[in-house]
Amino acid sequence: MKLLLATRNASKLVELRRIMEGAGLDGVEVLGLADVPEFPEAPETGATFAENALAKARDAANATGLTAVADDSGLTTDALNGMPGVLSARWCGHHGDDVANLNLLLGQLADVPDERRGAAFVCAAALVVPGSGDAAAPDADGTVPGQTVVHGTWRGTLLRAPRGTNGFGYDPIFVPDGETRSSAELAAEEKDALSHRGTALRALVPHVLALTGR
Amino acid sequence: MKLLLATRNASKLVELRRIMEGAGLDGVEVLGLADVPEFPEAPETGATFAENALAKARDAANATGLTAVADDSGLTTDALNGMPGVLSARWCGHHGDDVANLNLLLGQLADVPDERRGAAFVCAAALVVPGSGDAAAPDADGTVPGQTVVHGTWRGTLLRAPRGTNGFGYDPIFVPDGETRSSAELAAEEKDALSHRGTALRALVPHVLALTGR
Repeated sequence: MKLLLATRNASKLVELRRIMEGAGLDGVEVLGLADVPEFPEAPETGATFAENALAKARDAANATGLTAVADDSGLTTDALNGMPGVLSARWCGHHGDDVANLNLLLGQLADVPDERRGAAFVCAAALVVPGSGDAAAPDADGTVPGQTVVHGTWRGTLLRAPRGTNGFGYDPIFVPDGETRSSAELAAEEKDALSHRGTALRALVPHVLALTGR
Repeated sequence: MKLLLATRNASKLVELRRIMEGAGLDGVEVLGLADVPEFPEAPETGATFAENALAKARDAANATGLTAVADDSGLTTDALNGMPGVLSARWCGHHGDDVANLNLLLGQLADVPDERRGAAFVCAAALVVPGSGDAAAPDADGTVPGQTVVHGTWRGTLLRAPRGTNGFGYDPIFVPDGETRSSAELAAEEKDALSHRGTALRALVPHVLALTGR
């Protein structure tokens, strides 16, 4: 079976591929968008991570005829009522500028005291079988036939200046609960073991294996 | 009686003075911070408009010995879970740049469809009598002896580009419910009659008058 990782974010693709390949998916050939014909990218207009992840996976499955995995992830900040949230990758007003996003958030939180600097990375990961429908919405348990959404959450607190060079996005200002290092100071395999994306994708693995008949 | 309007924002001072003087406060001399000796400005670290308004009015009353009015106001946006909120004046990461704040918000909302562009201007206005205490917190009804907090809310929707040159802050992208013009296209007296700040300050007037013995 071919499984398409439907992300245009190069850093995310590395993580998704690493996590899925590390999960022991024998008999599953993992592809990226570079391996399939191009198709148009819809803007992310959903109000939730799950809506966006499902929309991206559905678009990819419909365009390619392949089973597709997509994620939508972001940083939810207590002092900003859960924002940047679904706007994490475009918090500075446009896509593609991790440094501007991070510096903007640090500036917004400059006067926020330590006790209100809690945050969580959240990931919704969707698995969509081609032909499983466009209009379907997740049930209370997050699944519809041929479409699965799972979540991963990673709690921590936010620093006042970046630390570390691993990872991407807000990693340099996020210290996971129980850690003293930022998530940009963790090795890749340490991050995957703890992270919102690792948790969510590992929760998808049994659903992928079910599709292979195992 | 002297009443100190404790704001360092020149545009706000104009509005506060216009609304308070328009409310017929005979026997009340309305002063601005330019009329009293300088005192240090504390950063706004409150999680709510009410906390910040109270803190500013308390600081001003303690520093000057005058009865003080302060407000904390902002734009609460549905698609941003109520943010920019208390960070409205420093949304771009620093104070003093209305244009950067507005453009950032427009960029963040670029992919947000019309049906999720609801917003509200909210104002908390605090009246503090000097010597009424530092640690006091508002009761459920928003008052403690010598300290009063009232709120005003102005619902509307957000445009995709600024319109109008009156007002300040987010006025050019806010269309009040029942209006077709932005709040930057309203005349000053029209804005005061409808606005969050007008509503809140008029609700303070009876409390001010009570202090004058009327």
